[in-house]
Amino acid sequence: MPVDLLVRNARQLVSLAGPAAPRAGLLQSELSIIEDGAVAVSEGRIVAVGSTEELLRKLPLDGRTIQIDAAGLVVTPGLVDSHTHLVFAGTRVAEFDLRAQGATYGQILAAGGGIYDTVRRTRAADAAQLLATARRHLGSMARFGTTALEAKSGYGLDLETECRQLAVLMELDGQPLDIAPTFLGAHAVPSGADPESYVEWLCEAAIPEVARRGLARFCDVFCEAGVFTPEQSERILRTGMAHSLRPRVHADELHDTGGASLAARVGAISADHLHCASEVGLVQMAAAGVIAVLLPGTAVFLGLKTQAPARRMIELGVPLALGTDFNPGSCYCESLALVMSFAVSQCRLTAAEALVAATINGAYAVGLGERLGSLEVGKQADLVIWDADDYRLIPYHMGTSLVRTVLKRGQILYSSNGSSPCPS
Amino acid sequence: MPVDLLVRNARQLVSLAGPAAPRAGLLQSELSIIEDGAVAVSEGRIVAVGSTEELLRKLPLDGRTIQIDAAGLVVTPGLVDSHTHLVFAGTRVAEFDLRAQGATYGQILAAGGGIYDTVRRTRAADAAQLLATARRHLGSMARFGTTALEAKSGYGLDLETECRQLAVLMELDGQPLDIAPTFLGAHAVPSGADPESYVEWLCEAAIPEVARRGLARFCDVFCEAGVFTPEQSERILRTGMAHSLRPRVHADELHDTGGASLAARVGAISADHLHCASEVGLVQMAAAGVIAVLLPGTAVFLGLKTQAPARRMIELGVPLALGTDFNPGSCYCESLALVMSFAVSQCRLTAAEALVAATINGAYAVGLGERLGSLEVGKQADLVIWDADDYRLIPYHMGTSLVRTVLKRGQILYSSNGSSPCPS
Ligand SMILES: [Zn+2]
Ligand SMILES: [Zn+2]
Repeated sequence: MPVDLLVRNARQLVSLAGPAAPRAGLLQSELSIIEDGAVAVSEGRIVAVGSTEELLRKLPLDGRTIQIDAAGLVVTPGLVDSHTHLVFAGTRVAEFDLRAQGATYGQILAAGGGIYDTVRRTRAADAAQLLATARRHLGSMARFGTTALEAKSGYGLDLETECRQLAVLMELDGQPLDIAPTFLGAHAVPSGADPESYVEWLCEAAIPEVARRGLARFCDVFCEAGVFTPEQSERILRTGMAHSLRPRVHADELHDTGGASLAARVGAISADHLHCASEVGLVQMAAAGVIAVLLPGTAVFLGLKTQAPARRMIELGVPLALGTDFNPGSCYCESLALVMSFAVSQCRLTAAEALVAATINGAYAVGLGERLGSLEVGKQADLVIWDADDYRLIPYHMGTSLVRTVLKRGQILYSSNGSSPCPS
Repeated sequence: MPVDLLVRNARQLVSLAGPAAPRAGLLQSELSIIEDGAVAVSEGRIVAVGSTEELLRKLPLDGRTIQIDAAGLVVTPGLVDSHTHLVFAGTRVAEFDLRAQGATYGQILAAGGGIYDTVRRTRAADAAQLLATARRHLGSMARFGTTALEAKSGYGLDLETECRQLAVLMELDGQPLDIAPTFLGAHAVPSGADPESYVEWLCEAAIPEVARRGLARFCDVFCEAGVFTPEQSERILRTGMAHSLRPRVHADELHDTGGASLAARVGAISADHLHCASEVGLVQMAAAGVIAVLLPGTAVFLGLKTQAPARRMIELGVPLALGTDFNPGSCYCESLALVMSFAVSQCRLTAAEALVAATINGAYAVGLGERLGSLEVGKQADLVIWDADDYRLIPYHMGTSLVRTVLKRGQILYSSNGSSPCPS
């Protein structure tokens, strides 16, 4: 098999090679770094990983092999953003100033802002508009190293708009980023609707139809005081499961409503946010193998003082993933690299734990762990070359993109032009 | 006078025109926005500001006038970063992981880390190394819209290294960013030294020598429990004043030691950090016209839960500026745009207040308010064209550079290549 591409001489090739499962406990700091490392690609897949010397000696390179010199640099798997609300219309920039003036989210909602503002705009936007906007955001994500992501509907709260959001995701999937689509009709109760009737409609009409059309892989619910109760949430998730949609949960973000336990009980692939999760809920998550998706950018964006108890999760054996939570209301940030900084500074992950969370564990959290998230033979050749000589600089260098080159399926997706305003 | 450059059609030309003084109180949200605005430049200075229609009608444009179309975009003054520690050697990336594992700063210091680690490396670095590293960081700052900054010594704690740091700043000043240099020999007591003897040496030897060589415009001190007492700090600052160095103060960051009052008493140009400043100290600052420099990135980077009482400062009439505090130990972040996001999300500034703090008030905080910080006739043509149709997006779009083009003295300093990994 001819080698199309060889990335060589990486000072640190952070392979993340290891068990084919989310990494919990001590494995969350195991990176399997190869010094002076190289990775060879054929037809978009990784065919060899090792030291540069070894690969140069063993591989059948010829004139058609593109070689990228990563001398002195760090190479990692492409980042996987395991929680986004990618598709929506409009911004909510005005709420930032309202919060500065002391408004609560309740007051913002009452003033016609909050999620219903985005719902109104998203319902009014056609697929082409949603597609163009989402592509811009994907471009921004990719520039910061993201090569795969989860993305949710949830700004329609009616069948037509929810399906339009999901159809946009389907069209974008693989072009070139991989996108794992989630049905989040249970993002909120529509303005003025009766909660029980809405749950009934979700379970009897919306979920079966979304599943029938093959528009989603996951079903998610915002289990929170004043939104969906644990009982309603469980009914929604179990209905999704009956239609082959794997469950995931917005759990215990603002209050402990037993979301972590619910995630464990239904065998969710992930429980997300978890700022207020109970100890018993975390223990149950660990036992059930539910991945905790941390979203520390959201608390920073909203100026909240709490973060999920990440170190306790690691002690209990809960595997951690990371997401931007990219959305117009509570985290208008596409950079998972910046969120890695927050994971370290706010949640006290080590740099290694943050990288595991943003790569291999993220890949498992979006159901793509068999194909993505590490640099191992047989996996898709999604990787990032960083302008750094130590992987720990990725979170340490806060807010500055260190991305040199992003490769997706072995093709160059993005390259910083490298020109500096103040050349040395 | 021929017009060299015309930036035209800006959807929002945020001029910041107003009184030639730091903006306090309500003026901190006054932006003087011109819709469909234009700015004309001759020989690096602004010669006209107004509507595009007006400038096109009135100005003697000819074939030599470069025209930049900013249609649909926001134009602001270049950002001014009013607190950085630009010149140092090495990183302190390992401390990030130590903090994750629960280490206190005291334990980090005891393990040979902390400021003394940077002092050791900076003493060992020659001017060429320091210059090259600083240039890289300046390039990163400029990419995020910074066109002028304050920068401090303070990683030598001996005359030779402190002067080497300041000489590097002098060499970089105007190449092309404007840099206001500050002597911060009083950044820490050298390891093993007697505090009183060190203060004595600063006042009797170091400050006079730095002033004699013309290496600094400001004298700063880290007034903090366990570092320099208010009495020692006042002696240092007054000695600086006697040698024509304007005082500024690292004040009340971790404890209220009366730093804000000290800043007011000596007539400092700024007091910086101020997380723990007392009400009476803030009242005194307002009366004395001391600018509060907020450094919200530092608390985020360190994972602290407190921020300076910014809204109270505005109520009391204290003018606010913003800085990155860029340094290897407590804020390895060059992006003042990101710090604007934190100012809004963490300190509850409005987007307008954050922009005033990062431009005109920043310019006054670094002693360059007469020349920089607003788009007004006679001022230097430092400006940023943002990929945004509303200035509020600058802080709202957290962690994503919206910078399209940076102009310094009317010359293009940086332009994003605009190419997207996922073109729409
Ligand atoms: Zn979410
Ligand atoms: Zn400082």
